[in-house]
Amino acid sequence: MSTLLVTGGTVVSSTGRTEADVLVDGERIVAVLAPSSNLLGTDLASSVDRVVDASGKYVIPGGIDAHTHMQLPFGGTEAIDTFETGTIAAAWGGTTSIIDFAVQTQGTRVEEGLAAWHEKARGNCAVDYGFHQIVGGVDEHSLKAMETLVDEGITSYKMFMAYPGVFYATDDQILRAMQKARELGLLTMMHAENGPAIDVLAEQLYNQGKTTPYFHGIARAWQMEEEATHRAIMLADLTGAPLYVVHVSAKQAVEQLAAARNRGQNVFGETCPQYLYLSLEEQLGATGDPTWGDFEGAKWVCSTPLRSREEGHQDAMWQGLRTNDLQMVSTDHCPFCMKDQKELGRGDFRAIPNGIGSIEHRMDLLYQGVVTGQISLERWVEITSTTPARMFGLHGRKGVIAPGADADLVVYDPNGHTSIGYEKTHHSAMDHSAWEGFEIDGHVDVVVSRGSVLVDDDGFHGRAGHGQYLKRGLTQYLT
Amino acid sequence: MSTLLVTGGTVVSSTGRTEADVLVDGERIVAVLAPSSNLLGTDLASSVDRVVDASGKYVIPGGIDAHTHMQLPFGGTEAIDTFETGTIAAAWGGTTSIIDFAVQTQGTRVEEGLAAWHEKARGNCAVDYGFHQIVGGVDEHSLKAMETLVDEGITSYKMFMAYPGVFYATDDQILRAMQKARELGLLTMMHAENGPAIDVLAEQLYNQGKTTPYFHGIARAWQMEEEATHRAIMLADLTGAPLYVVHVSAKQAVEQLAAARNRGQNVFGETCPQYLYLSLEEQLGATGDPTWGDFEGAKWVCSTPLRSREEGHQDAMWQGLRTNDLQMVSTDHCPFCMKDQKELGRGDFRAIPNGIGSIEHRMDLLYQGVVTGQISLERWVEITSTTPARMFGLHGRKGVIAPGADADLVVYDPNGHTSIGYEKTHHSAMDHSAWEGFEIDGHVDVVVSRGSVLVDDDGFHGRAGHGQYLKRGLTQYLT
Amino acid sequence: MSTLLVTGGTVVSSTGRTEADVLVDGERIVAVLAPSSNLLGTDLASSVDRVVDASGKYVIPGGIDAHTHMQLPFGGTEAIDTFETGTIAAAWGGTTSIIDFAVQTQGTRVEEGLAAWHEKARGNCAVDYGFHQIVGGVDEHSLKAMETLVDEGITSYKMFMAYPGVFYATDDQILRAMQKARELGLLTMMHAENGPAIDVLAEQLYNQGKTTPYFHGIARAWQMEEEATHRAIMLADLTGAPLYVVHVSAKQAVEQLAAARNRGQNVFGETCPQYLYLSLEEQLGATGDPTWGDFEGAKWVCSTPLRSREEGHQDAMWQGLRTNDLQMVSTDHCPFCMKDQKELGRGDFRAIPNGIGSIEHRMDLLYQGVVTGQISLERWVEITSTTPARMFGLHGRKGVIAPGADADLVVYDPNGHTSIGYEKTHHSAMDHSAWEGFEIDGHVDVVVSRGSVLVDDDGFHGRAGHGQYLKRGLTQYLT
Amino acid sequence: MSTLLVTGGTVVSSTGRTEADVLVDGERIVAVLAPSSNLLGTDLASSVDRVVDASGKYVIPGGIDAHTHMQLPFGGTEAIDTFETGTIAAAWGGTTSIIDFAVQTQGTRVEEGLAAWHEKARGNCAVDYGFHQIVGGVDEHSLKAMETLVDEGITSYKMFMAYPGVFYATDDQILRAMQKARELGLLTMMHAENGPAIDVLAEQLYNQGKTTPYFHGIARAWQMEEEATHRAIMLADLTGAPLYVVHVSAKQAVEQLAAARNRGQNVFGETCPQYLYLSLEEQLGATGDPTWGDFEGAKWVCSTPLRSREEGHQDAMWQGLRTNDLQMVSTDHCPFCMKDQKELGRGDFRAIPNGIGSIEHRMDLLYQGVVTGQISLERWVEITSTTPARMFGLHGRKGVIAPGADADLVVYDPNGHTSIGYEKTHHSAMDHSAWEGFEIDGHVDVVVSRGSVLVDDDGFHGRAGHGQYLKRGLTQYLT
Repeated sequence: MSTLLVTGGTVVSSTGRTEADVLVDGERIVAVLAPSSNLLGTDLASSVDRVVDASGKYVIPGGIDAHTHMQLPFGGTEAIDTFETGTIAAAWGGTTSIIDFAVQTQGTRVEEGLAAWHEKARGNCAVDYGFHQIVGGVDEHSLKAMETLVDEGITSYKMFMAYPGVFYATDDQILRAMQKARELGLLTMMHAENGPAIDVLAEQLYNQGKTTPYFHGIARAWQMEEEATHRAIMLADLTGAPLYVVHVSAKQAVEQLAAARNRGQNVFGETCPQYLYLSLEEQLGATGDPTWGDFEGAKWVCSTPLRSREEGHQDAMWQGLRTNDLQMVSTDHCPFCMKDQKELGRGDFRAIPNGIGSIEHRMDLLYQGVVTGQISLERWVEITSTTPARMFGLHGRKGVIAPGADADLVVYDPNGHTSIGYEKTHHSAMDHSAWEGFEIDGHVDVVVSRGSVLVDDDGFHGRAGHGQYLKRGLTQYLT
Repeated sequence: MSTLLVTGGTVVSSTGRTEADVLVDGERIVAVLAPSSNLLGTDLASSVDRVVDASGKYVIPGGIDAHTHMQLPFGGTEAIDTFETGTIAAAWGGTTSIIDFAVQTQGTRVEEGLAAWHEKARGNCAVDYGFHQIVGGVDEHSLKAMETLVDEGITSYKMFMAYPGVFYATDDQILRAMQKARELGLLTMMHAENGPAIDVLAEQLYNQGKTTPYFHGIARAWQMEEEATHRAIMLADLTGAPLYVVHVSAKQAVEQLAAARNRGQNVFGETCPQYLYLSLEEQLGATGDPTWGDFEGAKWVCSTPLRSREEGHQDAMWQGLRTNDLQMVSTDHCPFCMKDQKELGRGDFRAIPNGIGSIEHRMDLLYQGVVTGQISLERWVEITSTTPARMFGLHGRKGVIAPGADADLVVYDPNGHTSIGYEKTHHSAMDHSAWEGFEIDGHVDVVVSRGSVLVDDDGFHGRAGHGQYLKRGLTQYLT
Repeated sequence: MSTLLVTGGTVVSSTGRTEADVLVDGERIVAVLAPSSNLLGTDLASSVDRVVDASGKYVIPGGIDAHTHMQLPFGGTEAIDTFETGTIAAAWGGTTSIIDFAVQTQGTRVEEGLAAWHEKARGNCAVDYGFHQIVGGVDEHSLKAMETLVDEGITSYKMFMAYPGVFYATDDQILRAMQKARELGLLTMMHAENGPAIDVLAEQLYNQGKTTPYFHGIARAWQMEEEATHRAIMLADLTGAPLYVVHVSAKQAVEQLAAARNRGQNVFGETCPQYLYLSLEEQLGATGDPTWGDFEGAKWVCSTPLRSREEGHQDAMWQGLRTNDLQMVSTDHCPFCMKDQKELGRGDFRAIPNGIGSIEHRMDLLYQGVVTGQISLERWVEITSTTPARMFGLHGRKGVIAPGADADLVVYDPNGHTSIGYEKTHHSAMDHSAWEGFEIDGHVDVVVSRGSVLVDDDGFHGRAGHGQYLKRGLTQYLT
Repeated sequence: MSTLLVTGGTVVSSTGRTEADVLVDGERIVAVLAPSSNLLGTDLASSVDRVVDASGKYVIPGGIDAHTHMQLPFGGTEAIDTFETGTIAAAWGGTTSIIDFAVQTQGTRVEEGLAAWHEKARGNCAVDYGFHQIVGGVDEHSLKAMETLVDEGITSYKMFMAYPGVFYATDDQILRAMQKARELGLLTMMHAENGPAIDVLAEQLYNQGKTTPYFHGIARAWQMEEEATHRAIMLADLTGAPLYVVHVSAKQAVEQLAAARNRGQNVFGETCPQYLYLSLEEQLGATGDPTWGDFEGAKWVCSTPLRSREEGHQDAMWQGLRTNDLQMVSTDHCPFCMKDQKELGRGDFRAIPNGIGSIEHRMDLLYQGVVTGQISLERWVEITSTTPARMFGLHGRKGVIAPGADADLVVYDPNGHTSIGYEKTHHSAMDHSAWEGFEIDGHVDVVVSRGSVLVDDDGFHGRAGHGQYLKRGLTQYLT
């Protein structure tokens, strides 16, 4: 096993920063040391196999993207990134762990869904990966199957209050699943939008000839996110189950989370880069005419949808991150190409596959929030790595720079620069980018995963198969 | 300079725990290492001057008590602990830093008050100490004097909305001081009770013959804490100054803090062990008759007062700690003996010196909250050490176990036991204890301050004068 | 046509009281006059056919009970009061108008339901009656049928978020119906309880052997009323439809109403006497053992259920009436006998027909709230008569004592007394009373409906068939 | 005594409208009758002395302006309207009662202030008048004097949290006065702005050369209204005293009122026409440059100040009126001429006498809110007449059209038109109008005060001395 020393950098944690060196032996961090230390007489730099110079740069724990959908079947097509392309993109962007969603749908077995996802991922990942379990059909079988998840290292599962006929769970199903989850210690994740109501609105818009991507966001009104968020909170309150609401985008939903948290309920919220930066207004296209708007808007079709900047949702997401009413930022990476995929919905926004791909850009996009003063440097580390690890039972192994932890490290240069675009510059399989043209005042310089340097100035040194499956423990974040 | 290795323990931070050794060289931590590590061939344990065995125990950063009042003149007497007795008590209890309050009153100079406190403390402290500045008289002089505080390492100052004629600041004074504080980066600390209204109520009770200690708490109604808290928040909002409310005890005050924090305002709250554990009801004494209640209740006379358990204030404080609407726990250590001191108020509760002494018990009392499930082990470290350090500009030096930080360490034994009482068992100069009879399921085993072992199984090895003055930086806790 | 003069009384309106006489000519009030007036030389008292002496008594507009269920089929049986027995009971109690619910269920036509209810009521009512329409199955037919309701004088309709398989409407159905209602001006009434979740809880309790009436209330947790109330509010917000929530019983539901009202939304709430006076605790029976509790509790089985007094729901209902977060009090009169009816649920609380009969006691029970200081005399008139008239499009004709209005008058004696019980003392067909033993410090002395004296000291002078169908206008209560 | 019949109109009350005639005998209403009634054979129209034809028009109770300041000494000058000119203006505008403020200041006696105001008003008023008592200096004398107020017919008194050195009351004074008020049944009125803080801001602006009228509003920040409103509410909560906050203008203050009202506290709020229609932005003048803005802005200088339209305060006031979080609209009529009065503050906004004159326009301006859909016709009557009467102990005599009530009537023509301006068109002594150019889609046609026609198509028939002093009873509005 080889040794590695990261020297001269500023180690940033969720509570502060320290000038320190990090010593790696094999796959683990073995020491965090005073800089340039001649430790009790031993010159470490000359004793290790490799020295990474982080002078003038931040050394942070590798990013954890807790919400990705590689190869997700959706709307008659499948998310374009394989576990290989997706995790290579992750690595380039400083993300060294992902948690993807194994899928069970109504009429199928949880065990089969999980096995299928293991099959897709095994041997194909460039960074470590874990799974949440989607329970798309709550019945006696799936409730029973939930009992085995903890042993499988899957300690969180997700239900949908949207997508009737696909993943949708009714309130009685949610209640039963939450009861079971509470018993088992599983964390309940929720897609909180009132799907049945939204589908009526979408149909009505379509029937009125309002078929362009813009109307995707109109149909998915904030009221229906706020409503479902509150409903999930009350069902969680009734059952005592902790709740994690995914991809929060409406400020009123944050208010519901904040109210429940003030009452002391174990309720958590995740937002995504798109809800911090992008808005409904952009989907109008250059003409600003919603009924004839450019199909370009399709690349920003995701659910929950982009919301109106005028209504202040984006500001509310940043504020929620500051106030800890939102605890973390994942990508909901769900990549579909325009060609052959998004295009399925030309003429009917309902048929546009939902999803934006950001796995490579999350660390950068959030760092830009540090630059602009939206969040502190420490909070950046917390929401992208430390809290995801604690939330999903990986703390100690991931999310911190500490002896014993996996040597997942990123050297981030605050004086570097990153231009986001898609032509030859991103590593996802997508044929476009929702982030085309975003400029970042920072740069991911070096990425280390379990002691191996995946990315450095010379390029990518990783490989499919390096990534290992993460058996996760129970959430470590409850109060 | 000598070296020290703490081995075999579980290092606890505010975000998690790690099996790790801690290597100290001189006064600083130089490395945190994988346990029992034979670091690159060097057997550390045999190379250091001293090894502390922490097997089966927690290793935590030394406690920081950010609210103490040694030798405070109050009500015609003076707090009984000197900086020597008080800091020795602190050390026994696992607290390795205090921040005391230098006092300026109306008609005196800030510079003089500060000089007087330096005089009292210099050479007399067993642990490190810093100062906040009380500005008890806001005028042109004191506003001007605030400009020099940052250079003095005093980055926080306190005003009082209570105690008219003593420390009381009017709203126009508060406004001016906050404006100045914002300009300078000083953190405004506030005693938030509506003193003028409370004094009317107290006088009326006294005139009705309601003179026993119990009525201290009746006069200081929660409405007047809630009111002042809100007023301070609004003045802070108007000026843009961050605000730190001391010794919060009313649940409605926590609600005001929570509301402001939800809006994104930089508002913080501290509570104290007495507001978590003790209640107004106890001051009734055994007879339960408020007008003739035993003077025993005097030992619990403090301001803000103990509040009704029936109204749920204590539960609300614990909840506030969990929800982070309260960020930290200090003691407001303000020790007065019953004899000759508290007794001044026999027959008139208004003359009872206000204060409870807890400096030796804070770490234990809060740990008991871990035992009973009120807070997590990580949160214990956060509210007693990490956040105080960040809040008051000591992060990096204090509050964390990290290379470069001062070697302030506590080995805490979760299998130990501590009985709190006063006869020969506590080290404050007080002649009684508000905590008599409290039993703690844990024990402070070893206390290290800047590399020196102050307390171990053999007893106390510290000395007055070991403690150094802490020049503090600006708060590192703003969002 | 005969003339009537009510003299010497205090006419009470929703805003105040006036010493005045009321002159009736035929079915209408023709003048409200200064007392004992010798109007421009005409001695009215000697000119009219009948003089009713109201000296020392209140003269109020006849009560309007806007929520009754005569002959409602439910759980395999039918509410025991016919329109005749029910409206006679109403008359005795000072209620001169009712609004009952015509029922449509899934698979049937709205028109047929309405026709059936006209059939039941026509010629059988002792006081005037109108209808709301229950839309128990939202589909293209029923949405279309809603268009004719306004012309029929039916300007409000009701949906259920409870009772899956019977009346239950899904969120998409609710959305569609609200859109239609907004277009037509119909007021949407909602039974707001999350039925699917409640049914799971009820089944689980039953399976655990918890089968007694007490568990009816446990299954119908307040969280599920709060949740549904919020959901209905958000759907109403999305569609712009005004919303009226029936039989509110949970304090948290009132809070949701209050929040929406503060935002300016047209949202209204009704409570019922049982939620003001009765509590879950009583259903425990004398033994206090929930699993073996007496079946006596069955008489208080209604939905929403009686709630815990300890949790403060009853106090919250009174407060909601004072703060106008609740606007009116109806009975939800839904009478089932113990024998052969309630008894269907012996051994399974789920099979107990839901309902309490209070039509005869509403005016008295609410007046007792005046006596105990819960509400003012004016508010009593407002919540029992004036607001119901305004809410449901009857103002001008009903709900006020004003020229042109129907001569529906009650002479109420504040020095009288009323004992509520069932043996020979009440006029409903029920074999028991939920109100047995309630004592009222007031008495309904004289009841006049459209100029006819129905009740006076000599007893009942009314008849089935006196009551006429009320074609109602659109709600007059929107802001 | 003469008789009068108002025929053919629509009588509007706070709960609805009725086609009815109103019969007046002497100073009182003696009957409200079905229209054109040939009452029991008597042809009323031919029997009375005068018939007023109100066909196609509204008949409403005369307006009550509960907040005026005739001849108020302020800032070295005196409000320009005498009780004569002011009440004549009132009459022209459909206001038939005013409640003015008798003034006591520090160092003077309440009795003397009251006597002085009686002196000013007696024999000079064209409409009825009552007094509130300003208690500008709370001390033993004034607390004692409060005891006699109820007997004098003065059942409400006002304190100021603003204007240190003039009217300002400290919190201890407020507490004492509220305790006394609660004991006596007096309603506490409060000018809720944090004066000491505002004066600091004003001085700072002045010192920065920001001296134009615009900065009046900047200095009086909404935070300081919100703060004082909350403080007053908490002091009221502590003492149990009902509270009435005058001239509310900040939306956040309304939120504080709403929160207290939701908790069931007897807290009320008044706004004024200027806070509904006018905004801070207008004070910028045509150039939009705040530092050099035109002195024209001085005519809109009042306290509380006009607030930013962009921040939404005006919308919030209308909404507060709809939600009943604000209960009524008074004018705070406090008229100063530009010449010799407002001009005192040229070069220093602090010296501009505070006040706007609206007494003649209140009924019209509020009616325009009916036209634009902000409030209902019934609510117009409620907030301008019925609630003021109930709030201030005049119900039964004023505020309703009912037998026994004073015959204060306004015939309002919804098809008329009113242009507001000052040249020869208004009747106040002011030399300008804050309302210049406002157009109203309605018109005050006929004004009757205690049976006398003051205004009709032929002009003004009133006289100084017609108006009588109103001894008021205790508030009739508490819950």
